[in-house]
Amino acid sequence: MSIDHEQARELLRSKIRSIPDFPSPGILFRDITPALADAEAFTAAVELHLHHIADLDGQLDAIVGMEARGFLFGPILAHRLNLAFVPARKPGKLPAETIAEDYALEYAKNTLQIHADALRPGARVLIVDDLLATGGTAAATTRLIERLGATVAAQLFMIELVALGGRAAQGDHRVEAVLQF
Amino acid sequence: MSIDHEQARELLRSKIRSIPDFPSPGILFRDITPALADAEAFTAAVELHLHHIADLDGQLDAIVGMEARGFLFGPILAHRLNLAFVPARKPGKLPAETIAEDYALEYAKNTLQIHADALRPGARVLIVDDLLATGGTAAATTRLIERLGATVAAQLFMIELVALGGRAAQGDHRVEAVLQF
Repeated sequence: MSIDHEQARELLRSKIRSIPDFPSPGILFRDITPALADAEAFTAAVELHLHHIADLDGQLDAIVGMEARGFLFGPILAHRLNLAFVPARKPGKLPAETIAEDYALEYAKNTLQIHADALRPGARVLIVDDLLATGGTAAATTRLIERLGATVAAQLFMIELVALGGRAAQGDHRVEAVLQF
Repeated sequence: MSIDHEQARELLRSKIRSIPDFPSPGILFRDITPALADAEAFTAAVELHLHHIADLDGQLDAIVGMEARGFLFGPILAHRLNLAFVPARKPGKLPAETIAEDYALEYAKNTLQIHADALRPGARVLIVDDLLATGGTAAATTRLIERLGATVAAQLFMIELVALGGRAAQGDHRVEAVLQF
């Protein structure tokens, strides 16, 4: 699909709703639900995600997306690129043998798990999530993937909150963001 | 895409892993992650979902998917059908004004919320989730949608656990399932 990427980016940006003091005082929450609710903006979002990693075509085996909002675009991109989708989930959700990593959220602490058999050694993985904030979730997901012997080709986010420095927390890993705030 | 639907269904069924006593004793958990991890089975799953609601082409405005596993296929189907996607989420996750409904899970009690402005009155909605068990989640989602003045055209699940009677709990609503166990 051929689209004007700057026009698509402006449309998508116009559908991100900013909500102050959510989920706690002082946090300006970037709400992507209006972008999902508008079929044109939704299509623009999918095409922009794909555009950011177009050079990785044929060089990926799987997409890992983090519960819950990483499930919104991760499976679509896996479907469009004919890749496996692997969920990284909160504790107690994955039924088979798992490995786990702790991480600090922007406003809490949590743990992420992945099935121990989810990725074969050497698999080339794209991490997909809606938001890059402080980067703790993405770094924990990278550690999970690398503990299984797979490699992270890139991390792709719909939104990067630039002031929170999440990109620097990813070390040498490639980081792509559709929108920056 | 043209596929042999019975062959696709058998491929998909072969990639559903059954795990006893998860999340609690006596529950046989149907794990869809092996189907997501196999690009061919994943494609078969998407095409089968679309096949089940092919007659609704042009008669839908939005897909509502329930957190978290309803986010795995709901957004893909919305993308493929050029529809809006609306998430129904657990309490405290949606940042704007919400309405809520309680429901009884197979093994717990919970609440589901939807943004109060997520659907316009008269919108025609497809509900998508991975699993129909006792049907409480789907019935609560239907109530949320109808409270906003929208209508539920059908409910679509990857897996129906027939013995749990979830279909009967949906009243006169149309229920479609890709696989039955």
